Amino acid sequence: MIIVLRPDATEEQVDHIVKKVKGLGLSVHLSEGTERKIIGAIGDESALVTTPLDAFPGVEKVMPIMKPYKLVSREFQKEDSVIDVKGVKIGGKKVQVISGPCSIENQTILLEIAKAVKKSGATILRGGAFKPRTSPYDFQGLGEEGLKYLRHAGDETGLPVVTEIMDPRDIDMICQYADIIQIGARNMQNFRLLKEVGSTKKPVLLKRALSGTIKEFLMSAEYIASQGNRNIILCERGIRTYETATRNTLDLSAIPVLRELSHLPIVVDPSHAVGKWDLVAPMAKAAIAAGADGLMIESHANPEEALCDGGQSLKPKKFDQLMKALSRVAEAVDRDF
Amino acid sequence: MIIVLRPDATEEQVDHIVKKVKGLGLSVHLSEGTERKIIGAIGDESALVTTPLDAFPGVEKVMPIMKPYKLVSREFQKEDSVIDVKGVKIGGKKVQVISGPCSIENQTILLEIAKAVKKSGATILRGGAFKPRTSPYDFQGLGEEGLKYLRHAGDETGLPVVTEIMDPRDIDMICQYADIIQIGARNMQNFRLLKEVGSTKKPVLLKRALSGTIKEFLMSAEYIASQGNRNIILCERGIRTYETATRNTLDLSAIPVLRELSHLPIVVDPSHAVGKWDLVAPMAKAAIAAGADGLMIESHANPEEALCDGGQSLKPKKFDQLMKALSRVAEAVDRDF
Amino acid sequence: MIIVLRPDATEEQVDHIVKKVKGLGLSVHLSEGTERKIIGAIGDESALVTTPLDAFPGVEKVMPIMKPYKLVSREFQKEDSVIDVKGVKIGGKKVQVISGPCSIENQTILLEIAKAVKKSGATILRGGAFKPRTSPYDFQGLGEEGLKYLRHAGDETGLPVVTEIMDPRDIDMICQYADIIQIGARNMQNFRLLKEVGSTKKPVLLKRALSGTIKEFLMSAEYIASQGNRNIILCERGIRTYETATRNTLDLSAIPVLRELSHLPIVVDPSHAVGKWDLVAPMAKAAIAAGADGLMIESHANPEEALCDGGQSLKPKKFDQLMKALSRVAEAVDRDF
Amino acid sequence: MIIVLRPDATEEQVDHIVKKVKGLGLSVHLSEGTERKIIGAIGDESALVTTPLDAFPGVEKVMPIMKPYKLVSREFQKEDSVIDVKGVKIGGKKVQVISGPCSIENQTILLEIAKAVKKSGATILRGGAFKPRTSPYDFQGLGEEGLKYLRHAGDETGLPVVTEIMDPRDIDMICQYADIIQIGARNMQNFRLLKEVGSTKKPVLLKRALSGTIKEFLMSAEYIASQGNRNIILCERGIRTYETATRNTLDLSAIPVLRELSHLPIVVDPSHAVGKWDLVAPMAKAAIAAGADGLMIESHANPEEALCDGGQSLKPKKFDQLMKALSRVAEAVDRDF
Repeated sequence: MIIVLRPDATEEQVDHIVKKVKGLGLSVHLSEGTERKIIGAIGDESALVTTPLDAFPGVEKVMPIMKPYKLVSREFQKEDSVIDVKGVKIGGKKVQVISGPCSIENQTILLEIAKAVKKSGATILRGGAFKPRTSPYDFQGLGEEGLKYLRHAGDETGLPVVTEIMDPRDIDMICQYADIIQIGARNMQNFRLLKEVGSTKKPVLLKRALSGTIKEFLMSAEYIASQGNRNIILCERGIRTYETATRNTLDLSAIPVLRELSHLPIVVDPSHAVGKWDLVAPMAKAAIAAGADGLMIESHANPEEALCDGGQSLKPKKFDQLMKALSRVAEAVDRDF
Repeated sequence: MIIVLRPDATEEQVDHIVKKVKGLGLSVHLSEGTERKIIGAIGDESALVTTPLDAFPGVEKVMPIMKPYKLVSREFQKEDSVIDVKGVKIGGKKVQVISGPCSIENQTILLEIAKAVKKSGATILRGGAFKPRTSPYDFQGLGEEGLKYLRHAGDETGLPVVTEIMDPRDIDMICQYADIIQIGARNMQNFRLLKEVGSTKKPVLLKRALSGTIKEFLMSAEYIASQGNRNIILCERGIRTYETATRNTLDLSAIPVLRELSHLPIVVDPSHAVGKWDLVAPMAKAAIAAGADGLMIESHANPEEALCDGGQSLKPKKFDQLMKALSRVAEAVDRDF
Repeated sequence: MIIVLRPDATEEQVDHIVKKVKGLGLSVHLSEGTERKIIGAIGDESALVTTPLDAFPGVEKVMPIMKPYKLVSREFQKEDSVIDVKGVKIGGKKVQVISGPCSIENQTILLEIAKAVKKSGATILRGGAFKPRTSPYDFQGLGEEGLKYLRHAGDETGLPVVTEIMDPRDIDMICQYADIIQIGARNMQNFRLLKEVGSTKKPVLLKRALSGTIKEFLMSAEYIASQGNRNIILCERGIRTYETATRNTLDLSAIPVLRELSHLPIVVDPSHAVGKWDLVAPMAKAAIAAGADGLMIESHANPEEALCDGGQSLKPKKFDQLMKALSRVAEAVDRDF
Repeated sequence: MIIVLRPDATEEQVDHIVKKVKGLGLSVHLSEGTERKIIGAIGDESALVTTPLDAFPGVEKVMPIMKPYKLVSREFQKEDSVIDVKGVKIGGKKVQVISGPCSIENQTILLEIAKAVKKSGATILRGGAFKPRTSPYDFQGLGEEGLKYLRHAGDETGLPVVTEIMDPRDIDMICQYADIIQIGARNMQNFRLLKEVGSTKKPVLLKRALSGTIKEFLMSAEYIASQGNRNIILCERGIRTYETATRNTLDLSAIPVLRELSHLPIVVDPSHAVGKWDLVAPMAKAAIAAGADGLMIESHANPEEALCDGGQSLKPKKFDQLMKALSRVAEAVDRDF
């Protein structure tokens, strides 16, 4: 940690800081620049975390050197993590496609969609039973009944299934039905929920918050990992910016950045990011070209009747066309599809 | 709801949309502009919420006319809501000041702080027992032990106490100790938590999310209100922008905007927004000048030793000076203090 | 234009607005909803532009129906515009690659780079002679001397050349040397400069501002077009968001959005967006996959010695590898390269 | 400057960097942490500006210690700058109010407004003759004719006048008429324009860009100062964020931040930030409470007829009421008004 002192810092103040840092078991290196004095704190920076050095008199700013996450970092593990979900490997050479409806509506429609997306090449089925809706008056999902339909559709088609958890009290129930548990964007920093899924062995699909930085995103993954569950899949799904032409701004540069910082697999959800089905295809292609390990794409047999996010869902025919197009892009960047 | 059609929309497409809207019990008004056809859907717009009209062929964009929140809106209730917490009235003429440490560390320090802030004029005591920390390795709070210290300090000083809830499973326990339950910024869209506090009668202090729009903020309040609890206090605490000179950007214009849209009282937390204690004073004054009904200001007897956010806490002497200054600003805008 | 009235709007207020709108030559359609009255103003909306209807008493909000740009819109011209620069067609089936150094340093280095990028398949040479630098103490560019080197390198290699204009007074001089004039991100709303390049016939490469919305971006293009110059190339180069892991956030969803709204060709500059050379390759591939008509990629023979933005420049060998990779992605989305 | 090395940096790479830094005349301090090696470059950091150290192999990140601006910094000049404009002192104890219409429409209306705002206590008159309008089809201002009206109104009332410059070619003409030259938000990084006004002696009111960081804002001021003109007034006018309830988000925390970093006076323009006249009053009060040295408030005799931004203009009566209210807030924070 580098502590930059104010030009007017007194010797007394400097001594006080140095003493404090040393008291925490770090060694101190004092450096006199032409215009600023600098204190270098050498050793385990985490000892400094709870000491608000920036509140000490004489301090101008404090600059950490170390990354605050460990288990999920590339330094901790050089090789890419590959998460195996019932034989579907996320993070390997093959680009996996997760598809299905935003929310589960009934058994028949879901199975129909599941069969359609499987036929087109999707390898994982998604479907929401508990929906985080902005309005209390919107459809909130079918609950456990929906999970049963999801499990049924998964079993019928042989597709592993992923569904979102919203409440730590639902963990056991959801683990019964789901193969992957999704933490939605609005819960990326719901730390109790992170700890709860961290204490299971289920693969977790962690979505980036609308205003989550890359660093915070990895810290949330670290929460899960620190509880013992390292089966984490990162999911970029668009961030909130000033631009309103799309619902959110899909940050595809997050892919290579995360790749460098972490060993975890990276999946992209273009549907929620753009919010309109005709923008999904170009962004899905771009995500693969940028190096994504997988995609999460909403599809629906009849978007007009969807109880949630119909506007961004692809019909089976469009989805099938997209899968063919994606396969070509994957090949062009040396990925299997 | 206004549905703007694409210039190339066919008659068949228009008929299909009109039929759909009528089927939902609304009446339809078709208007031919010089360059666009427009469909006006008249009646209860909420019927249209689950129908993704923007996914219908021929539709260019859909513009809602109505606000999606009701119970918390100024239209629903013209007069300002005043929340009475053991005699402390939030939303009335008097500007209330909530103060205390970010996290509760032990009984002695907390009581010392409580006495100090009370002496300076604070009317509510804050203190965190469950802390939402970005890192799993940071201090997570004392839990129920902390709540006991908080209750004790509240009882000793006669100050009502506010503390944060992070997990729906803690609701009964926290209700036992706290007079106001705080929903933190990261949980503004933790809808299960909102419903849980909505089903109690305890006053709720709802913080705006880092990327929460005014509309989403009010929708989250609506979640609470829709469960039957209308004792809601809105709290602006800074939003995430591109600027890094402050931790977040305090959006004081939210005060008059919320005032116009809602009848709920509005409190401002400058400490978390700016993240540095020397910026707290000017922003606290500005908040009152802009019309805030209350302030939430972190204070600590010894910020250097604080286990959390020490850098933004005011020492008792500084806090006392600030309170005197705030009292003058409050008077200048015809508020009691 | 839709004018939504406040629930408490008086008849007198409504009459006043109606009279005003009619006075501007539009016809008025009054519609009574269940909770709001709405006025539809039918006719040429541009007549309303200078009348601040939102300032009229009784008005809640004003919602324009029409897009504010015309000449650059897809409705004005259905077919894609193809800009021909000395035989290099931007906006056609072939993806064009513009490459070269951020700033021109001397004749020898520039020519060396030009030859290298041409050999790898670049079709247009870039180089800055006038540099918009954040600091007055940074290298500001070689000026006209640099333009001469650029022209020379272009003539030697047969590559058309593009360079940035910063000052309307330089227009004649720059037109003498350049084949495409670049308007930098910081000048996207330098309206005098836009008018100046609009009054020439030179192709213009218009970069999106760091905080430019899609609508403002197209309005700036409209400025140029409205002066008579329709040879406009749009360039997405990253927008400013809260994320600091990359210099800016490359908004690739802008490509399909712009494609739908406008007939102008779209080029992407990943180098400035991400700011680090190892992130350029994945984002360049993604841009092509998302449908870009061209790329602008910084390259330098010796980035360590570059006087500007060396950190984001590719060396000839890396650039050559990238071009080969890009060619495969282009083929996968049915583009020539 | 601190150069943090990658954990896998080779000795050869480290030597190369050290040699480079020494070659630029700085001394080097190598520090071995537990997990990272760090190079401290001691001496004049500006020598390093043109060397892209982050592009050197083995470098993880580069952290500058020094601020990039000098002349405008608080370190360069401890005392607040006071800009004297014909006897009106900006930056002293008195809060100055600049008022007038967004754009000048004709001599009669302007004079009427000027007299009204003067009567209410405004001390400087504003009025735009060259207007930066998003649309080429909007009213662009009266040009030199408008400047004559402005000068006339200023002379008649004894108020100094401020007006915006958009084009470096207009500098001499505008200097003839104006007492303060305004650089608009969209031109904050129009570096040629900055240099041009920097080479005069006229006071400059520099507006922060919609996406301008505090650092960039001060760098733009440094551009002006570096040309010899230190009569600079900083103006916060709202930044672009994701929130759309107000036109922009007024960043009042910029006031204390700028105050600490710079000696220049700070003025706030709430009118453009919020975009609606009924939000102007609370934000104007807040600005003074937060420590602003002045305000810029749009007013108009008849906002409904204004050719520009009528929606945010105050009528004389409202303006007069506001001035009275502001005077009380100013007194509460020990400022004259």
